[in-house]
Amino acid sequence: MADFMFVLKNFLVVSLAMNMCLIWKINYDDEETLSSKWSSWGNLQQKFHFHGSCFNGEKNNGRVEEAQVSSKKTEILATTSYVASTVVPDGGESVVINLDHGDPTMYENFWKQKGEETTVVTSGWQHISYFSDVKNVCWFLEPELVTAVTRLHKVVGNAATEGRHMVVGTGSSQLYQAALFALSPHNASTPMNVVSAAPFYSSYPLMTDYLKSGLHKWAGDAHKFNKEEPYIELITSPNNPDGSSRQDVVKGHKGILIHDLAYYWPQYTPILSPPPDYDIMLFTVSKSTGHAGSRIGWALVKDREVAKKMTTFIEINTIGVSKDSQIRAAKILQAVSNSCDNDDDDDESFFDYSYNLMEKRWKKIREAVDKTRLFSLPDFSPETCSFSGRTFGQLPAFAWLKCEGEVDDCESFLRKNKIYTRGGKHFGASMKYVRISMLCRDSEFEVFTERLPTIIS
Amino acid sequence: MADFMFVLKNFLVVSLAMNMCLIWKINYDDEETLSSKWSSWGNLQQKFHFHGSCFNGEKNNGRVEEAQVSSKKTEILATTSYVASTVVPDGGESVVINLDHGDPTMYENFWKQKGEETTVVTSGWQHISYFSDVKNVCWFLEPELVTAVTRLHKVVGNAATEGRHMVVGTGSSQLYQAALFALSPHNASTPMNVVSAAPFYSSYPLMTDYLKSGLHKWAGDAHKFNKEEPYIELITSPNNPDGSSRQDVVKGHKGILIHDLAYYWPQYTPILSPPPDYDIMLFTVSKSTGHAGSRIGWALVKDREVAKKMTTFIEINTIGVSKDSQIRAAKILQAVSNSCDNDDDDDESFFDYSYNLMEKRWKKIREAVDKTRLFSLPDFSPETCSFSGRTFGQLPAFAWLKCEGEVDDCESFLRKNKIYTRGGKHFGASMKYVRISMLCRDSEFEVFTERLPTIIS
Repeated sequence: MADFMFVLKNFLVVSLAMNMCLIWKINYDDEETLSSKWSSWGNLQQKFHFHGSCFNGEKNNGRVEEAQVSSKKTEILATTSYVASTVVPDGGESVVINLDHGDPTMYENFWKQKGEETTVVTSGWQHISYFSDVKNVCWFLEPELVTAVTRLHKVVGNAATEGRHMVVGTGSSQLYQAALFALSPHNASTPMNVVSAAPFYSSYPLMTDYLKSGLHKWAGDAHKFNKEEPYIELITSPNNPDGSSRQDVVKGHKGILIHDLAYYWPQYTPILSPPPDYDIMLFTVSKSTGHAGSRIGWALVKDREVAKKMTTFIEINTIGVSKDSQIRAAKILQAVSNSCDNDDDDDESFFDYSYNLMEKRWKKIREAVDKTRLFSLPDFSPETCSFSGRTFGQLPAFAWLKCEGEVDDCESFLRKNKIYTRGGKHFGASMKYVRISMLCRDSEFEVFTERLPTIIS
Repeated sequence: MADFMFVLKNFLVVSLAMNMCLIWKINYDDEETLSSKWSSWGNLQQKFHFHGSCFNGEKNNGRVEEAQVSSKKTEILATTSYVASTVVPDGGESVVINLDHGDPTMYENFWKQKGEETTVVTSGWQHISYFSDVKNVCWFLEPELVTAVTRLHKVVGNAATEGRHMVVGTGSSQLYQAALFALSPHNASTPMNVVSAAPFYSSYPLMTDYLKSGLHKWAGDAHKFNKEEPYIELITSPNNPDGSSRQDVVKGHKGILIHDLAYYWPQYTPILSPPPDYDIMLFTVSKSTGHAGSRIGWALVKDREVAKKMTTFIEINTIGVSKDSQIRAAKILQAVSNSCDNDDDDDESFFDYSYNLMEKRWKKIREAVDKTRLFSLPDFSPETCSFSGRTFGQLPAFAWLKCEGEVDDCESFLRKNKIYTRGGKHFGASMKYVRISMLCRDSEFEVFTERLPTIIS
């Protein structure tokens, strides 16, 4: 009976979501407002890309649905939603596919199989206080999350945890800003330089400069940084957008490093031994398990004073981090560890599931690209993963696609073909490149890889 | 059987929490580090006060527990926790009572009575995506929360909601910062002035200046602001720390107003008709229902462009707000509305429960203060509440206590008597005042009001 009620409830949720999304409308003027606002900042050429659904269908029959594309405004009435995106009108050729952002919905099916092991039940009186653990440097960090994170890093071998201070954040974006706050001197005459090797994560410049902080400023591509000044270098490895393994590049004696290891998980890259042992390492559930909506990230920090200052930033910024999401993330991460420890061959581990999915998708996108001379993708040398024992090249969460030949603006070119991606300029790179999310739902990925080889210049 | 399992689970949680808290240790050196850091900022005299539990017992028997109080470091080994604070060693006289912060644990018992109506069940596959509602200006805002918030404001009559844009935040602190970001010009040569009438919320100066933003700067007490420059004025009503009803005071033609209505709920103040209709109104579950750990606040915003820019701030700052907590807050707020709509006399509404509790506490603290000539409290004129029909004076979430006579530093004076409060200087006011949280658990409040009349100068 309880199972039946559970199924019934799920059915109701999906059904409601489908109804709601039937008259979905996306106003792209929001994005235009942002870009016009940023344009008044001399040093900011970045936009933020969180509007639009992953998959927007549009019919051409002119009855209910319509699509207007103009330079001023793009409006789409969606016939399908990213919640239930199995209906592809007209064989898919008129569907807008939005692979601009990295919404990690591809793991949803795995979590649907897991059932009660990952269900969180919260009573109205629980987690009321601001405080989680006042003996911890990070007083709003739930002890359950510490246990779950530590166990998973030990299982996977992708980070040293011994003697580290953990700081929880509302996603790793907040932790990035917390780290800048902690590492920048507060009494310096000029702001601290912040660099990262291009192509770098498109949000770094904006997150560094949006408040015109006197503490830190974006100083661009780390390869070009040659000042004799202190700096913070961000190393994203595997890198967003291009998936490559990264080391620091400036190698100056006045540098402080932040390692963003959001994608250092065995579905994306071979895990190498020994585990990384950097001063500040950032992780997030968004990209490891796909639970982006929970907004939970964590930092492993060697220095206690830095961990304290990062905690202070989050105190001032949001007075802590959602306990509900911390408790849920702890349960999800424990389920991932459990799935790895499980010897039952019928019960696929999370990382087997996600590796197989990424492997299949990369095979498919490479096949699609090979059918045309218009595009190319980076190659990765195989290495042996200390976690899985598999030998493979990177399977990045994003495809860093290059338009070959005469196409100079790959983002606009693909947009004309109703594939929305993020162009190279946002990453400090050539406009011949785009970043394409590999993390959307199966149905969207299918339409995308079917369309790619049919595009003509 | 399910009920039994539920009770058993709750029992286990409480039991575990009690065990964990038995060896609780609070390092106040954290706070000192912060204050020494802030002291290097010329314009920042504020500290942030989120370390320490609400109630720290300490025994004098010298076996396990010890307490060291010195100017350099205060260490407390707690025998009780704020999770289970019924054990008061030695009749309570040696217990440290921490009423510095406003941890709203006083409503916990109400929520314990509510049972399943407020229980949230979340499956592992739910709320995975970053997106909640892409047709909304605030694309990460859960529609369930909009419905619950709108209904509750209509039930209570404490805010106009028609035609407003709602923006959700990780607590109202984030929304305050989002509003500053939205209202400050991004191309001005000097930062926007931000003012509030003293005594003002102690975190406002810090939240405005901690990143040394070029967009905005703290310009102090609104009563003293006389520049012919644009400014943002914060109006907190009822006010934190002193509970008074507030209007804007600068009244210049270049001013933009933000109304922080965190405490405009019928347990704290008479609700007056018509509902407030200001341009930007901030609310939070922390102070309305007591769910501080969920970190959910909301803004009601008249201007669409301002709502968009606030959304942009939260996009860049934390890429949205925990969906898990939004869903939970929606359920809690619906339960509050349900309890108000319920005609069953045996079933006390949330606002009857919380009003009665506040009324009892204010009676008790006034009795305690009346027993001594050392202290005084503000008086409030009675008004009739349009929601409850009751006629009463404010029952603020904080007591703004004044040390009468020769005591010039009320915070230090009370600290010597093991009552931790927040001194007037943090609120831009005289050190003869302290702010005392009225929101702690019953047992703590009992000890506090018993001790207050016994203090001698």
